[in-house]
Amino acid sequence: MIETPYLLFLGDAPDGLAAKVAQGIRDWRPENSVGQFRMDGCKADMKLPDLTLTEAREAGARTLVIGVANRGGVISPAWKRVLVEALAAGFDLASGLHNLLRDEPELVAAAHANGRTLHDVRVPSVAYPIANGEKRRGRRVLAVGTDCSVGKMYTGLALDRDMRAAGMKSTFRATGQTGILITGSGIPLDAVVADFMAGSVEWLTPDNDEDHWDVIEGQGSLFHVSFSGVTLALIHGGQPDALILSHEPTRTHMRGLPGYGLPTLEVLRDTALPLARVANPACEVIGVTVNTQHLNDSEAAECLAEIEERMGLPTCDPFRQGTARLVAALAAL
Amino acid sequence: MIETPYLLFLGDAPDGLAAKVAQGIRDWRPENSVGQFRMDGCKADMKLPDLTLTEAREAGARTLVIGVANRGGVISPAWKRVLVEALAAGFDLASGLHNLLRDEPELVAAAHANGRTLHDVRVPSVAYPIANGEKRRGRRVLAVGTDCSVGKMYTGLALDRDMRAAGMKSTFRATGQTGILITGSGIPLDAVVADFMAGSVEWLTPDNDEDHWDVIEGQGSLFHVSFSGVTLALIHGGQPDALILSHEPTRTHMRGLPGYGLPTLEVLRDTALPLARVANPACEVIGVTVNTQHLNDSEAAECLAEIEERMGLPTCDPFRQGTARLVAALAAL
Repeated sequence: MIETPYLLFLGDAPDGLAAKVAQGIRDWRPENSVGQFRMDGCKADMKLPDLTLTEAREAGARTLVIGVANRGGVISPAWKRVLVEALAAGFDLASGLHNLLRDEPELVAAAHANGRTLHDVRVPSVAYPIANGEKRRGRRVLAVGTDCSVGKMYTGLALDRDMRAAGMKSTFRATGQTGILITGSGIPLDAVVADFMAGSVEWLTPDNDEDHWDVIEGQGSLFHVSFSGVTLALIHGGQPDALILSHEPTRTHMRGLPGYGLPTLEVLRDTALPLARVANPACEVIGVTVNTQHLNDSEAAECLAEIEERMGLPTCDPFRQGTARLVAALAAL
Repeated sequence: MIETPYLLFLGDAPDGLAAKVAQGIRDWRPENSVGQFRMDGCKADMKLPDLTLTEAREAGARTLVIGVANRGGVISPAWKRVLVEALAAGFDLASGLHNLLRDEPELVAAAHANGRTLHDVRVPSVAYPIANGEKRRGRRVLAVGTDCSVGKMYTGLALDRDMRAAGMKSTFRATGQTGILITGSGIPLDAVVADFMAGSVEWLTPDNDEDHWDVIEGQGSLFHVSFSGVTLALIHGGQPDALILSHEPTRTHMRGLPGYGLPTLEVLRDTALPLARVANPACEVIGVTVNTQHLNDSEAAECLAEIEERMGLPTCDPFRQGTARLVAALAAL
């Protein structure tokens, strides 16, 4: 668990896109951030108060979260000066960078001297068990995609928000670094050792109230040959009661794999559901989410209507429309 | 690569079963062993010459392989004395034990002092790439099981032997610790980090002659919820041209999962083949292997005939019958 609230470190971000992690926290857990910290030349802005380290501590911030991708994969000397100061001011640090905080001797020394914690969320911090497949109480929903990066995390975060707004018990369960930083906990599934993947997902989604939903963040795709094993571990470890199919309609080939076309939503359904039923025979596909960001309003409406008609399932773009119809489908399950 | 030939260290094995790794080397790569080393009280016997360390070195042995499971998960002081002596005598050491050689300071010091190598085959020693899915030259065959531990490694080793005996080009590609120790190389797939699983299998089975077969050692099962992700990574990273279905007919539930029944061979075929065709559209299921060790001769014959009739595929027990009919099916592909 990463202690909240956060101060969002935007560093010298060259543009808003570089600050995707900060934007995710701002969008989905605004209550987790007391402000932002920007260095000279920073071009990103979360529309949060610009605070000094001292001001942020006074406002209650516990952890400085690196909300920006670093240039060239290294933590620059300019960043490091701020991070060392933050540790001295009493902040923990949290980061999803490839360049681990724990690999920087100055940060390790400052954390030690000040009794603070360095959270490298890319690296598993728990000795996960091997999955035992035992049925757990409570309910679980998982988005599976025709490809990677089609909006599965967004689907899960929107669903969690809308379920809670509808008075349902819901917890978003992060399985990737951005999700972990947004919510403060989770598993970095892509960094877990093969034998323990499904067990880490069981650990993440334990026994719960019968009417509680874990909204498990999806990863990869059963049809993406680089990462499909991660997806199957998520399906079998998560033992979902409900699957949502996620799609990006303008994708011409699998992400990073020019020779591979996308499966249809029908093929995704007919592949994922039988596999999910190995772990949970009661599993159902309850809806479709479509990322229509590359379509205009009328194209998007047409696309969603066509898929809904074809698949016979509630179909929505979580960003344009929210997920109310999926929430209703889950509540009715 | 582990240097051959080996001296097989049987330690103080309480029985033959404890020396499964040595037995595998003896059965499948007899040319890799110059002899065995047994301590007082050893109850295992590979029917190889009992050699001292000096005699074994004189006979050409390069590596002492720990061919036995250790008691209580630790390397005992008695073992350690022999291992330190072996390093001084010029042997490398190779081990698949949980208790890593590299975690024993005396062994590390002796290896360093003598310029020798410690091979812990449970631990990946290569920075594997992320899979790119590109089609590779040469051909590949993989066994997939209705469950774990149904004879997939045995199927692969027998197939490799029989293909080479038939004059075909074949290489057994080990994906587990026993297979690695038997053949001297491979990947410890269950210990690879999730994101790199499929990439490690691509690395293991690179471009080759058009008429060369990689016989890839199978792992887990698509239907075993603890390890299914490993199996799918193997299918997608291996991009097999041919699948073999492997089964153990007396199994009443999935290994280690009392609540889970086994799939039928038909369901295994209909699940594995479409997934394999994502990576290799030309993939075919070419046969079935059945581990009939718990059946008597007539039961085994009946079982094999029934499956062959039902599935319409050449069906054999590799141990009782060899794999000649599968070799013929591969040659005809």
